[in-house]
Amino acid sequence: MIRDKKRGKIVKKSRIGRRGRGFVLRGRRSLASRLNTTEQVYPSGCCVSHTEERRERAGAGGAEEVEMEVGFLGLGIMGKAMATNLLRHGYRVTVWNRTTAKCQELVALGATVGETPAAVVAKCRYTIAMLSDPSAALSVVFDKDGVLEQIGDGIGYIDMSTVDAATSSKISEEVKRKGGAFIEAPVSGSKKPAEDGQLVILAAGDKTLYDEMVPAFDVLGKKSFFLGEIGNGAKMKLVVNMIMGSMMNPLSEGLCLADKSGLSAQTLLDVLDLGAIANPMFKLKGPAMLQGSYSPAFPLKHQQKDMRLALALGDENAVSMPVSAAANEAFKKARSLGLGDLDFSAVYEVVKDAGGSGQA
Amino acid sequence: MIRDKKRGKIVKKSRIGRRGRGFVLRGRRSLASRLNTTEQVYPSGCCVSHTEERRERAGAGGAEEVEMEVGFLGLGIMGKAMATNLLRHGYRVTVWNRTTAKCQELVALGATVGETPAAVVAKCRYTIAMLSDPSAALSVVFDKDGVLEQIGDGIGYIDMSTVDAATSSKISEEVKRKGGAFIEAPVSGSKKPAEDGQLVILAAGDKTLYDEMVPAFDVLGKKSFFLGEIGNGAKMKLVVNMIMGSMMNPLSEGLCLADKSGLSAQTLLDVLDLGAIANPMFKLKGPAMLQGSYSPAFPLKHQQKDMRLALALGDENAVSMPVSAAANEAFKKARSLGLGDLDFSAVYEVVKDAGGSGQA
Amino acid sequence: MIRDKKRGKIVKKSRIGRRGRGFVLRGRRSLASRLNTTEQVYPSGCCVSHTEERRERAGAGGAEEVEMEVGFLGLGIMGKAMATNLLRHGYRVTVWNRTTAKCQELVALGATVGETPAAVVAKCRYTIAMLSDPSAALSVVFDKDGVLEQIGDGIGYIDMSTVDAATSSKISEEVKRKGGAFIEAPVSGSKKPAEDGQLVILAAGDKTLYDEMVPAFDVLGKKSFFLGEIGNGAKMKLVVNMIMGSMMNPLSEGLCLADKSGLSAQTLLDVLDLGAIANPMFKLKGPAMLQGSYSPAFPLKHQQKDMRLALALGDENAVSMPVSAAANEAFKKARSLGLGDLDFSAVYEVVKDAGGSGQA
Amino acid sequence: MIRDKKRGKIVKKSRIGRRGRGFVLRGRRSLASRLNTTEQVYPSGCCVSHTEERRERAGAGGAEEVEMEVGFLGLGIMGKAMATNLLRHGYRVTVWNRTTAKCQELVALGATVGETPAAVVAKCRYTIAMLSDPSAALSVVFDKDGVLEQIGDGIGYIDMSTVDAATSSKISEEVKRKGGAFIEAPVSGSKKPAEDGQLVILAAGDKTLYDEMVPAFDVLGKKSFFLGEIGNGAKMKLVVNMIMGSMMNPLSEGLCLADKSGLSAQTLLDVLDLGAIANPMFKLKGPAMLQGSYSPAFPLKHQQKDMRLALALGDENAVSMPVSAAANEAFKKARSLGLGDLDFSAVYEVVKDAGGSGQA
Repeated sequence: MIRDKKRGKIVKKSRIGRRGRGFVLRGRRSLASRLNTTEQVYPSGCCVSHTEERRERAGAGGAEEVEMEVGFLGLGIMGKAMATNLLRHGYRVTVWNRTTAKCQELVALGATVGETPAAVVAKCRYTIAMLSDPSAALSVVFDKDGVLEQIGDGIGYIDMSTVDAATSSKISEEVKRKGGAFIEAPVSGSKKPAEDGQLVILAAGDKTLYDEMVPAFDVLGKKSFFLGEIGNGAKMKLVVNMIMGSMMNPLSEGLCLADKSGLSAQTLLDVLDLGAIANPMFKLKGPAMLQGSYSPAFPLKHQQKDMRLALALGDENAVSMPVSAAANEAFKKARSLGLGDLDFSAVYEVVKDAGGSGQA
Repeated sequence: MIRDKKRGKIVKKSRIGRRGRGFVLRGRRSLASRLNTTEQVYPSGCCVSHTEERRERAGAGGAEEVEMEVGFLGLGIMGKAMATNLLRHGYRVTVWNRTTAKCQELVALGATVGETPAAVVAKCRYTIAMLSDPSAALSVVFDKDGVLEQIGDGIGYIDMSTVDAATSSKISEEVKRKGGAFIEAPVSGSKKPAEDGQLVILAAGDKTLYDEMVPAFDVLGKKSFFLGEIGNGAKMKLVVNMIMGSMMNPLSEGLCLADKSGLSAQTLLDVLDLGAIANPMFKLKGPAMLQGSYSPAFPLKHQQKDMRLALALGDENAVSMPVSAAANEAFKKARSLGLGDLDFSAVYEVVKDAGGSGQA
Repeated sequence: MIRDKKRGKIVKKSRIGRRGRGFVLRGRRSLASRLNTTEQVYPSGCCVSHTEERRERAGAGGAEEVEMEVGFLGLGIMGKAMATNLLRHGYRVTVWNRTTAKCQELVALGATVGETPAAVVAKCRYTIAMLSDPSAALSVVFDKDGVLEQIGDGIGYIDMSTVDAATSSKISEEVKRKGGAFIEAPVSGSKKPAEDGQLVILAAGDKTLYDEMVPAFDVLGKKSFFLGEIGNGAKMKLVVNMIMGSMMNPLSEGLCLADKSGLSAQTLLDVLDLGAIANPMFKLKGPAMLQGSYSPAFPLKHQQKDMRLALALGDENAVSMPVSAAANEAFKKARSLGLGDLDFSAVYEVVKDAGGSGQA
Repeated sequence: MIRDKKRGKIVKKSRIGRRGRGFVLRGRRSLASRLNTTEQVYPSGCCVSHTEERRERAGAGGAEEVEMEVGFLGLGIMGKAMATNLLRHGYRVTVWNRTTAKCQELVALGATVGETPAAVVAKCRYTIAMLSDPSAALSVVFDKDGVLEQIGDGIGYIDMSTVDAATSSKISEEVKRKGGAFIEAPVSGSKKPAEDGQLVILAAGDKTLYDEMVPAFDVLGKKSFFLGEIGNGAKMKLVVNMIMGSMMNPLSEGLCLADKSGLSAQTLLDVLDLGAIANPMFKLKGPAMLQGSYSPAFPLKHQQKDMRLALALGDENAVSMPVSAAANEAFKKARSLGLGDLDFSAVYEVVKDAGGSGQA
């Protein structure tokens, strides 16, 4: 019987070697019941968490409940939506945010407030961070009253911020040196998927901690992946974003070609949406692009930064990627034209741009 | 009561179950006659045929039923599936194929055989052609016993083959000179969609003829578009294929980057399929590419030809398309490596290709 | 003694100072007659005319002198300079130009005027054409009073205009069908080299005619090449222009990079001019580009057309050329911005172009 | 009268504020005479040293001589040639090399050997370093017995190694902190130009020190440039190499296009060498490339690294460079094929590469 008064309570059944036995984190009411099944629902060899499947199984039984204290650092747009989801699924959540005011809305939903990142970690067996950038991610760990002051044996730290591999590695090393467990778990998806619990989670690092976090990830996302060693989460995200950014270019080129060739660009979007390359991004961004509306869901300068980093990863591994490189240069052109803060679909402006007579 | 002895007859109330009770192709003066009806089912200003919507409306009313003789030239993989669909939906179909043997299967389904393209046109008010390439498309029109020998006032010719704008224009001019009506109507979609009546039809040319063909197009496809003047169908197809071919490149580059960077390429496909750029092509081709399986649904050399033509269209209209141009060069590289007859996804081999130690 | 009453006469020892004493264009059977001489000045196996070498040899001996009537069609900037050079080197030249007024300046230098292209060919054993474009090149041959009306056995027609291979082939076929000999001989070099007799001549077609023309080519250019079958002259020019156009792009990119990185673009030009890639184009165009001066020595739209044709040649032969393709797209962008009539170095404006804050 | 016994002697005339007055370093016999002219030959505002001009002036007079002790660290291929040139022009040179054996050849020419970098700096007012890479450049400065131990007020350190801007800055800061003066002065040109004193020197940093070094630079190179702040030398070299690497690609593409189109690639080289883009690199590398000979004058992996760094510089400054980016990807492809250690012209193999039938 393991019991850690401070950090949360585990009800029933002795647990030896917290990680060794694949302890599973669950929400208060909804997910706890599975703990007493003889069949381990999430075998540790399984690197993918299929939420749908699990929810079905979960519906089958359910009696006993486990209550877990989860820490949550960072209540920006994403973090707030994620912490809210955890609360709604029965988790006890202790939140911290740089500006404390943001905590109140979550307190209204049942959250407790921690004074500092260190205080949160001191209280919770698992602490999730969702911060705006690498410097914020480093700050909550390394600064005074930071995570490192309280992290230790048997405690897990999960950074879901989007940071580079170097930042992840730095945090990972220190957390491990202190005896803690660490995973990076950047997400694919923005505000809406966060609110709907439909994120895609790209986790890497400590496999046991990942397994323990799967129930929480099932609340936050529609699927989570375990990708191996630290840095792989960041890398996977770069590759996905590179493909996405590259795809935005032929769409832009095609819309412009249609328009200049006497076809309707809107009809092109309609045709695309019925065919083999129909995809949510074209459907969502296409009409906005035709209206010159580039409200930044994903700022162009960040898209270009990700393409640069993906190309650098390719350089490191001697992978020649001429099409993505051409797309990157188009984004750079957009930056040079002052479009960096608009949505990355504003690269369409670079393709369209024709200052003169157009037919010289 | 419209009646055209030679080219088709209109039979009252004799057909049950053909797409509810909506009338279909109409007699020679049918468009004019419909204008007298109080409910105009397909207003001529509507350039898009929404099958779903139409089916609903059709179900609502309908009294008179019409049976129409449609000619069909070319019974290759696509043509056979399309003619079969017309027969199954109650059309009377007169078929012709260069090698007569292929007609027998359709005869078994109720088709009549025409001796020559000219004989088919002589018999049918509307003749659809679905031929393999521009030279075949020209041949059935201009050769001895060809379409031109019988085309004339009040007769419609619909070429659904994929041909270039120049070929379309040449056919259009001659058909019109003889008094006939013409539309080009290339399709997006291959064997399966053809069998399922799920093609996307990109029509252009004579708007009245297009309107008359809408019911048949509703049988053949899930949606049809009227795109304006002759050539626009071909152009729209080029633009769509250019975007598709370009997209295949960042997918290939991303899969290769994942693999060389220590990530699982299969996991990348899984992640992509959950996100904003999930699309049927990635889902279908991706796993095959990882297995090096390039059974040609759309041969690479044809994809590259379409990209070349799309780029030429861009050149004509001074549209700079650097990403599509880079993609085109990758396909050319694939051709130079002897991959032209494989599926266009074989461009992945060009990206992967690393003859040496790989890390020089 | 060779004598051809109608098309030219050979005059013994009457000319002093024409390129030393080397004989020049020869009479109808001249090639055969030279084969009897012990010293074969221009062995037929030699496909390159080395002017310097030849001048040396010419200076060494030489007794007999020949005067030859050469026809010259087209007195634009290039043609006028070239015809002038022929006159200055002792050739008798019969000129024709669409607008007769342009002939007067050459009459002052000793030229005779032909009423029509046909009249020129009727009078001269060899007729050179230097016309502005393919349509003009076709017109002087195929129209009424054109070259074809008088071309025939033993007569040579040399088209030095820059035309596509198809135009060359069409002319070649008809000239040969009538019994005449034909070479295409487009040149590399513009006004100044034409005036200085420093053109580079890219000849192809009838090898015997080429050999006979070598002395005239030595007057017009610093070197001539015989490249084999008709079309090869045009192709070689395309390849050279493709390389040239491509090179203009990294120069533009480098100048822009220098400028934006706090270096002096002029110093970059100075450094380049001292190193391994120093070349006349960089030296000539670079400083003008920095001043935004793009007086069209070679209009951008023509450069882009040549790049398009070179890429098409690559497409035909499955040669992937990603860097040239990227350069072509930059020129297309320049066209779309209305820069097509400026010098091709105006592609620099496309690279520089930064409408906004520049640092988004 | 300034006199520094240890570091070299200055003959005649008091010098106040060594750097303030623009002290000029000269070789023993050849260049010393100009010191007593009233007109300052190299005004400090002049950023370019024109060797030719200077040598002419030098020839005009000359009486008095100055003898200067110059230190030289690093006797690799380049360093040995450069130190030799200094000795031949009358400089007293104290050399150091990691492996002392290499010093003997220079001792035979009159050089003195220093035990350590620190010992060299202790003895010489000016010390030049020519080392193989950034780590060697850092090592001689920061390691035990390194430059920093003896550098100080009134002493100049000149690093002519090719290093990145960060390395230069690091050295610069420490040298200046100790009171010394520093310039980076990477060179353009390899073994032969080094031996012939025909390097191009790209200096940046302390302008006064640059002015003092001009006479020595005149011995080592055909021209030296002063480019402003530290880092600019490295940047200028990157820009030059980016243009050079990019140019190698259209050459490769053109050679391949010629060959596949039925033209002679050798003839293309001949034509190029007569035209507006004739340059030493094409002339030198072209024929070797046609023979598949890629003896590494400049290894491809280093060229690619420079292109990557130049593109990164462009990224930093929002300069879109699509053609150079495409060229970079070709070099990366070459690396992936194991060609990284060959000459950078081996990128031709990437363009040529056609494993299959070649005409699919």
